[in-house]
Amino acid sequence: MKKRQKPQQEEWIYGLNPVLEVVRSGREVKAVFLSSTRKDKVTALEEEITSRGIKINRADNLFFDSRFAKGHQGIAALVAPRGYADFDELLETPSRNNERPLFLLLDGVEDPRNFGAVLRVADAGGVHGVVIQAYRSASLSPEAVKASAGASEHIPIAMVPNIKNAIRDMKESGITIVGAEADAELLPWETDLSVPLALVMGSEGGGMRKTVREQCDLLVRLPMRGKVNSLNVSVATGVIIFEVMRQRMSKC
Amino acid sequence: MKKRQKPQQEEWIYGLNPVLEVVRSGREVKAVFLSSTRKDKVTALEEEITSRGIKINRADNLFFDSRFAKGHQGIAALVAPRGYADFDELLETPSRNNERPLFLLLDGVEDPRNFGAVLRVADAGGVHGVVIQAYRSASLSPEAVKASAGASEHIPIAMVPNIKNAIRDMKESGITIVGAEADAELLPWETDLSVPLALVMGSEGGGMRKTVREQCDLLVRLPMRGKVNSLNVSVATGVIIFEVMRQRMSKC
Repeated sequence: MKKRQKPQQEEWIYGLNPVLEVVRSGREVKAVFLSSTRKDKVTALEEEITSRGIKINRADNLFFDSRFAKGHQGIAALVAPRGYADFDELLETPSRNNERPLFLLLDGVEDPRNFGAVLRVADAGGVHGVVIQAYRSASLSPEAVKASAGASEHIPIAMVPNIKNAIRDMKESGITIVGAEADAELLPWETDLSVPLALVMGSEGGGMRKTVREQCDLLVRLPMRGKVNSLNVSVATGVIIFEVMRQRMSKC
Repeated sequence: MKKRQKPQQEEWIYGLNPVLEVVRSGREVKAVFLSSTRKDKVTALEEEITSRGIKINRADNLFFDSRFAKGHQGIAALVAPRGYADFDELLETPSRNNERPLFLLLDGVEDPRNFGAVLRVADAGGVHGVVIQAYRSASLSPEAVKASAGASEHIPIAMVPNIKNAIRDMKESGITIVGAEADAELLPWETDLSVPLALVMGSEGGGMRKTVREQCDLLVRLPMRGKVNSLNVSVATGVIIFEVMRQRMSKC
């Protein structure tokens, strides 16, 4: 359960928000690179970076274009790799903070942009942590970090060898497992989501694996009213997580 | 109010879902191009296309890579441009169908991927139509179509010279204008969203323009519980649109 990814020496983060968030997170930043052609609106950012003793290097556009995807915004940072959270410790976070558990489990979300977008939703929605499986999942790549708008720096992520064991451990801790499934009978607002909860989201294409679905205590679906009738996984996650928030706020 | 974009002769659509949706939508498809290296899982698609009398051309990878962004999936279609909806007709759609109005107005959403993602949410959430402003808005570019997963083929979109006039007309039709704003006092579930409604979403960076915000009957915010504390505009739209759906289903 505590297996981690092979550690890397360092990694790149790019884009304004991601770099700013990584600087603020306290993670070790080895260097920041800023495009020599970019002069607008970065003075405050530069001050925030240099005030923390981090050196800013100037580089030309080719430096950025050759290394990063579109959207690098002429800024990048070389940083120590972000560690994954320990699953057992993650599981204890809510009780340590005297909060009702709210976890997110991703089963087969392989697209790094979707993964990043989901992390952003999880952060905004007050999720205690996200659990992913080591095999066949998107990892914390620079693209995922960028898509998360920097939220990946803050939301704890546990990478486990097998998500089914994580579900079993959560159930043993008294957490209700709710899976999102297009064919489910119940709607989120017909279900008590104010209990200690872990939400399982599957891949956009195929949903959860059957064996994962079978472990869920409840399945919910979002009513679809259109012609295409599917939602991006980050949107579906947002709708359900904020329904959890609505229910919990109403009961407080 | 009826000004339209300068009409183009034809345009490209790329990606599996977008091409499939455009074929199904009945829009004039001049040709479909399929990568000669792609043989997996497209037989059903090819049958659906050819059964409608549309010719499939084979092309090599360079053809696709040189024309389209990553994610083209080796399939593209050359199609007649999709027309925008007439605003006045759009406004009458709900009463024609004996439905409670639900519109979405976008003020300053310039990123085509965000625009496409919002269209997908609007389709799934049963929105009657989306209103955008001609100036400083993302248009129905191939990138937006792709990000919408094909939903852009189905959801009516009206492009108006000035969104403020659209709001005024909607108010005169008895529609309540609800704007999403980070600093608002009310939460969506503290507000009656079961009334005839138009939701206004601003840009991710700056929100609505001040003059648009001042025209809103109500402002709502989503509670933020994280460190980064922002949502992608498509996620925020999804959360509010599905809250509308929840309230309307509860009252039926």
